[in-house]
Amino acid sequence: MSATDFPAWSREVAGRMETVLAGLLPSPRIAPSRLHDAMRYAALGGGKRVRPMLVFAAGQVSQADPARLEVVSAAIELIHAYSLVHDDLPSMDDDVLRRGKPTCHVEFDEATALLAGDAMQSLAFQLLAEHRLADDPVAQLQMIQVFAVACGSRGMAGGQAIDLDAVGKALTLPELENMHIHKTGALIRASVLLGARCGRPLDPQALGSLDRYAKCIGLAFQVVDDVLDEESDSTTLGKTAGKDREAGKPTYTSLLGVPEARKFASSLLAEAQEALAGLDERADRLRQLADFIVRRDR
Amino acid sequence: MSATDFPAWSREVAGRMETVLAGLLPSPRIAPSRLHDAMRYAALGGGKRVRPMLVFAAGQVSQADPARLEVVSAAIELIHAYSLVHDDLPSMDDDVLRRGKPTCHVEFDEATALLAGDAMQSLAFQLLAEHRLADDPVAQLQMIQVFAVACGSRGMAGGQAIDLDAVGKALTLPELENMHIHKTGALIRASVLLGARCGRPLDPQALGSLDRYAKCIGLAFQVVDDVLDEESDSTTLGKTAGKDREAGKPTYTSLLGVPEARKFASSLLAEAQEALAGLDERADRLRQLADFIVRRDR
Repeated sequence: MSATDFPAWSREVAGRMETVLAGLLPSPRIAPSRLHDAMRYAALGGGKRVRPMLVFAAGQVSQADPARLEVVSAAIELIHAYSLVHDDLPSMDDDVLRRGKPTCHVEFDEATALLAGDAMQSLAFQLLAEHRLADDPVAQLQMIQVFAVACGSRGMAGGQAIDLDAVGKALTLPELENMHIHKTGALIRASVLLGARCGRPLDPQALGSLDRYAKCIGLAFQVVDDVLDEESDSTTLGKTAGKDREAGKPTYTSLLGVPEARKFASSLLAEAQEALAGLDERADRLRQLADFIVRRDR
Repeated sequence: MSATDFPAWSREVAGRMETVLAGLLPSPRIAPSRLHDAMRYAALGGGKRVRPMLVFAAGQVSQADPARLEVVSAAIELIHAYSLVHDDLPSMDDDVLRRGKPTCHVEFDEATALLAGDAMQSLAFQLLAEHRLADDPVAQLQMIQVFAVACGSRGMAGGQAIDLDAVGKALTLPELENMHIHKTGALIRASVLLGARCGRPLDPQALGSLDRYAKCIGLAFQVVDDVLDEESDSTTLGKTAGKDREAGKPTYTSLLGVPEARKFASSLLAEAQEALAGLDERADRLRQLADFIVRRDR
C-alpha cells in the first residue's frame, strides 16, 4: 500500500477493526446471549474508527507490532462504544439514533444497554491485561494505568460529568475547552500515547511531541464535530443533528460562530503539524490523519 | 490482636477499608466535584466489607503484604459499589434505599449515578495497575485479567443480565445457581484468588482448595441473603426488604422455602470448610469468615 494513499489505509484500518472486534467480543452463542448481542450491536458495524487510526498511525512512529496495535485499538473502541451507549441513555442525552441505527437502549432495553456498557469497559481492561503489549511487563502495567486514568473521573467520565453540569450555562471558551479535553480528548490522547508505546521505546522529546499533537487533534476533532453538527442533517451524520444546540449545550459554534470555529480548527491543525516537526517520515500517517480529522464532512 | 478474636478483626478490616478508600478516591475538592462526591457517597460509609475480609483472610494464607491487600480490597469494593449504584437505577431494580441511606441516584441524580459507577470501575483498574501487587509484573497482569473477567459479561455484569432475564420466570435450582455464580459469586471468588496471589506463590492444590472454598462461600452468601431478605425488615437490612419476592424474582427461599434454604446454606458452609482441610492454621481467618457469612443476621 502506498505511503500516501490515505483513503485506502483508513479503509483498511476500519475493516481490520471490524474483524478484530468481531473476534474479541464474546459470541452471542455464549450466555448471556442478549447481553453479548447488545455489546456486539454497540461495538460493531459502524463508526469512523478515528481512534484506531490514531493508534495505528502512532504505532508506525515506534514501529510497533500490528498485533499489539489491534488489541489497544479494540480496547479503546470498546471504551468509546460503551461511552456512547451510556451517553445515549434517557437519563443522559436521551438519543435514539447513532451511527445511522437505533441506539442500543432503543434496540434492546435500558437495563441491557447499561449492562452492555459496563461489560464493554471490563472487556477493554481484560484485553489490555491478557495480551502482550510491551516487551517489558512493567511498561504494560503503566499503559493500563494511563488508559484507566483516561477513562475515569479525571478523563472521559469526568468530561461527561462536566458536560452534564454545563447544560443551559454560558461557558467561557476555556471552560468549554476543559470539558472537551476530558470528554473526548482524554481517549484520543490515550490512543496516540498507547499506540506509540506498543513499539520501540521513544525518547521523552518524541513522546512529548506526540502528546502535544494528540491534545491539538483531540480538541480539533470536537470543534469540527460542533461545526458538522450545526451544518449537517441527521442522515449525513448518522446521529441526531443540531441536538446540542437544542439541548442548550454550549458548543464551539454557539460560542464562536461557524466561521471562527472553522478558523480555530485550522489553527489547531497547524499546531498539531508543528508538534510533529521533529519526527521523520514515520509520522506521516499522523500528519495525514490530522488533515483528515479537520477536513472530514461527517 | 488474638488469632481467635474474629469480631475485632472484622471491625479492623472494615475500619481500615474506610480509611483506604477515603484516601484512594478522588477528593471532592478536585473537579468534577459532584461526580467525586457521588463516587465517595457510593463507596464510603457502609457495607459489611465482606469482600475485603475475604481478601485479607486469603492473603494470610500466602503471607501477603497488607499494603497489597488494601489495594486489591479497594478495587474490589469499588466494583461492588459501582454494581450496586447501577443495579439500583430506575431502569434496573429501581431502589431508593441502600446501606440505610438514599441510593446514589436519589441523593444525586440518575446521570451522575451512572457516571459515578462508570468512573468507579475505571478507578478499580487504575489502582490494580498503578500499585505493585506481585513480585512478578507478569503475575500482576494475570491478576488484572482474572479481575476483569470477574467483572465482565461472563462474570458479575453477566450475572446481572441473567437476573434481568429471570424476572417473572420459574427457574430451576441449577439455573438460579448459575445466576448467582456470576452475579455475586464471581467477585467473591476474585476476592479470595487475588488476595492469595498477593503473597508467596501457592501450589496448584492450595489454589484449587481456595477456589472451591470461594465458590461455596459465594453461593452460601447469596442463599443467606435470600433468607434474610425474606425474614428481616428494611431497617435491619439497610435496604428494601422482601423486594425480590415482590418483583417476581426467583430466590432460594421461593424455590426451597426458608428451612430448606437454611439447610442448603449449612451444607455449603460444611463444603467450604472441607475445602480448606488441607491448609494449616494460616487459613483460620477464612474458616471463621465462612461461619460469619452463613450465620450473620443482616
